[in-house]
Amino acid sequence: MRMYDIIHKKRDGASLTQEEIQFVVQGFTDGSIPDYQMAALSMAIFLQGMSPEETAHLTLAMAASGDQIDLGDVQGVKVDKHSTGGVGDTTTLVLLPLVAAVGVPVAKMSGRGLGHTGGTIDKLESIPGFSIELSKEQFVEQVNTKGAALMGQSGSIAPADKKLYALRDVTATVDSIPLISSSIMSKKIAAGADAIVLDVKTGEGAFMKTLDGSFALAEAMVNIGENVGRHTIAVISDMDQPLGFAIGNALEVQEAIDTLKGQGPADLTELCLVLGSYMVVAAGQAADAAEARAKLQEQLDNGRALETFKTFLSAQGGDASVVDDPSRLPQASKKIPVTLPGTGYVSHIHAEEVGTCAMLLGAGRETKESVIDLAVGIVLHKKVGDRVEAGEPIATLYVNDESKVQEVTNRLQAAYEVTETEPPKHRLIFGVVTQQGTERFEA
Amino acid sequence: MRMYDIIHKKRDGASLTQEEIQFVVQGFTDGSIPDYQMAALSMAIFLQGMSPEETAHLTLAMAASGDQIDLGDVQGVKVDKHSTGGVGDTTTLVLLPLVAAVGVPVAKMSGRGLGHTGGTIDKLESIPGFSIELSKEQFVEQVNTKGAALMGQSGSIAPADKKLYALRDVTATVDSIPLISSSIMSKKIAAGADAIVLDVKTGEGAFMKTLDGSFALAEAMVNIGENVGRHTIAVISDMDQPLGFAIGNALEVQEAIDTLKGQGPADLTELCLVLGSYMVVAAGQAADAAEARAKLQEQLDNGRALETFKTFLSAQGGDASVVDDPSRLPQASKKIPVTLPGTGYVSHIHAEEVGTCAMLLGAGRETKESVIDLAVGIVLHKKVGDRVEAGEPIATLYVNDESKVQEVTNRLQAAYEVTETEPPKHRLIFGVVTQQGTERFEA
Repeated sequence: MRMYDIIHKKRDGASLTQEEIQFVVQGFTDGSIPDYQMAALSMAIFLQGMSPEETAHLTLAMAASGDQIDLGDVQGVKVDKHSTGGVGDTTTLVLLPLVAAVGVPVAKMSGRGLGHTGGTIDKLESIPGFSIELSKEQFVEQVNTKGAALMGQSGSIAPADKKLYALRDVTATVDSIPLISSSIMSKKIAAGADAIVLDVKTGEGAFMKTLDGSFALAEAMVNIGENVGRHTIAVISDMDQPLGFAIGNALEVQEAIDTLKGQGPADLTELCLVLGSYMVVAAGQAADAAEARAKLQEQLDNGRALETFKTFLSAQGGDASVVDDPSRLPQASKKIPVTLPGTGYVSHIHAEEVGTCAMLLGAGRETKESVIDLAVGIVLHKKVGDRVEAGEPIATLYVNDESKVQEVTNRLQAAYEVTETEPPKHRLIFGVVTQQGTERFEA
Repeated sequence: MRMYDIIHKKRDGASLTQEEIQFVVQGFTDGSIPDYQMAALSMAIFLQGMSPEETAHLTLAMAASGDQIDLGDVQGVKVDKHSTGGVGDTTTLVLLPLVAAVGVPVAKMSGRGLGHTGGTIDKLESIPGFSIELSKEQFVEQVNTKGAALMGQSGSIAPADKKLYALRDVTATVDSIPLISSSIMSKKIAAGADAIVLDVKTGEGAFMKTLDGSFALAEAMVNIGENVGRHTIAVISDMDQPLGFAIGNALEVQEAIDTLKGQGPADLTELCLVLGSYMVVAAGQAADAAEARAKLQEQLDNGRALETFKTFLSAQGGDASVVDDPSRLPQASKKIPVTLPGTGYVSHIHAEEVGTCAMLLGAGRETKESVIDLAVGIVLHKKVGDRVEAGEPIATLYVNDESKVQEVTNRLQAAYEVTETEPPKHRLIFGVVTQQGTERFEA
């Protein structure tokens, strides 16, 4: 088998066999296939596409390129949740204790990564003492006894994907649905989940800007999951404005605690209930989404979701008293309100720009070497549809280093669009994709 | 300017600007653009195409990437000729003295390269004493005083093309018309010709297997030439069977001498008269192709073409007596006839396979390190349309190393197709492409 012939075949629009795809992934991972051949193949895939079968083969080959976690010792159906990424996405922090409280075993691996804020691990590390340093045995034991555990993702999960992503990133071959979907799913599959609930964000602040693109990505991922025997459900949710109010690490922990107390932002709460419902159903803990949702609501109302969060934090060395005393979380030295000159209704918030503002304040990593300030970030006070009076703060900046306050203020003001008339209601959930098909909710 | 954005733009089907193309070619040549980005761009160009303007910009940028030969000191209009390559293509050896005899200055740069036989330089080096070691001044002086000179192509002619070709060769991006046409034309333009006559081969033994593909390539090259101010004419000629009878270095020199004496193969003679006519017209030495052809025929008939060949050989140290005494050319130790078992008419000769047979005997280079045997090769006795009786030789192998004779015999026999009925006449010239348009000759 020769890489040249495989590139030639895909270039001409033909489908690659499982053996050919395995040859490519193995050769690229071990270095026997050079970057330039892989770059040519990636562009050919980008422009000629891949069938669902090819995409499934690619996913499995990448999952098999490194460690594959065996969660067989965890009792029950392990359900993982993945978000394609957005601004102010605090769902994992809420969902982890919420579904665990219902009895879904949560064996979560997370990363740090680049972005507007840190990853889930960074956020949780704003809780004093919290540690992700668990052995595999401690991890499984904790899931079985406490219902939830979180550990850092091993560097050797799907190394082929890591190497390929780095190459795609510099060859303009990132936004290809077969390549994105196989990249995401290869990591989830290697991490050992039995079922996967995907939160596919759509809109300006998302990777996928268009609704059609988001549905296509969701369908591709559900296809892969079902093709390889992992029950997969995708929810398409809005990222045309930030989710919730907080963008920042400790700020999002605080928001998650509020949400677990039933006092969180309406959109974040609703999205967590929707995603959580599918997780509970997938885990076999409820017959349908309505029953699952009722169970989740019950855990919020009776305080068990919050208790589960405390138990989880304590189990990993974290100071659970932050839940009752948020002042124990890292605090920014200054809180600076941002106002708008005029009055009106917020018609649009450029989500990506708000995320960049948070990163400029120090909440996220621009490069791998960046150091995150866990205390800083932004809390929004106004979202789309809200009325703003002149001089009324639209947001508060949580700041330690004041050097970028002026720039951030200007950019944040520019990220808000205000109109005189009340805009139409903003939709949060656009549809659901399952094995049975695609359901699009009407606008 | 960023290579990433340029790849992205071409990937999405947009046209690149002259500045972007220059940036790519310069960066790739100086190494600041890595192979993997160039490979991705090449595949994007392969699949999305390039406009005539983009192709012209690419050609000029590659021509400008190294030495550009100034032939300003050569008197008259310099006309270069290029063949896209085939089996047994002896035209350059005939055309060089033939058009020089009419008064067209021939300032030819040639290479060695890989292939079924050596390049023009290898072939001429089968003449004892012949040397291509001329200084630029000697070269110009010889063209002005003797009418023709040939030197080796400098390694620094279009280095960007050389590097890009090597990358395309391993990334399945060779057979793209914008990339092939700019590759060929960049070298011709850098080599300083005022006008270019292209012999675009078509058929099984050619790079372009289909007639439509060959016309498209011809049109692309004529477009480039005219776009950059070099008058360009392309002739589409047959390569469905080898041209002439001889395939081998000294064997082709012998065939060229025969042709200059008016005793060459009909197809080779005709193609030389056609290509030569366009060269003479392009040089301004005749008003039209008919007048040019008459002049060329006159030089064959009166012996001046042959005399010019002798003068040319002597000027470069070669033993011109080979023209009258071919035994002074390298001789193979054995001549082995090849016969067919049956009788009938030759309906097809698989040209590429015949070329491979010549290479197996040692006439050509498989790798850069291969050593050529100038004496060996194949002389065909039967071509398409000819009658073959049982036991009548279809070809003679000229052999020094006998180890591959059996394999070559078998393959050569298999390369001949014989039918009972006489096949239709084989066409030699399929059409001509000029600035004025494309003329296809009826079948």
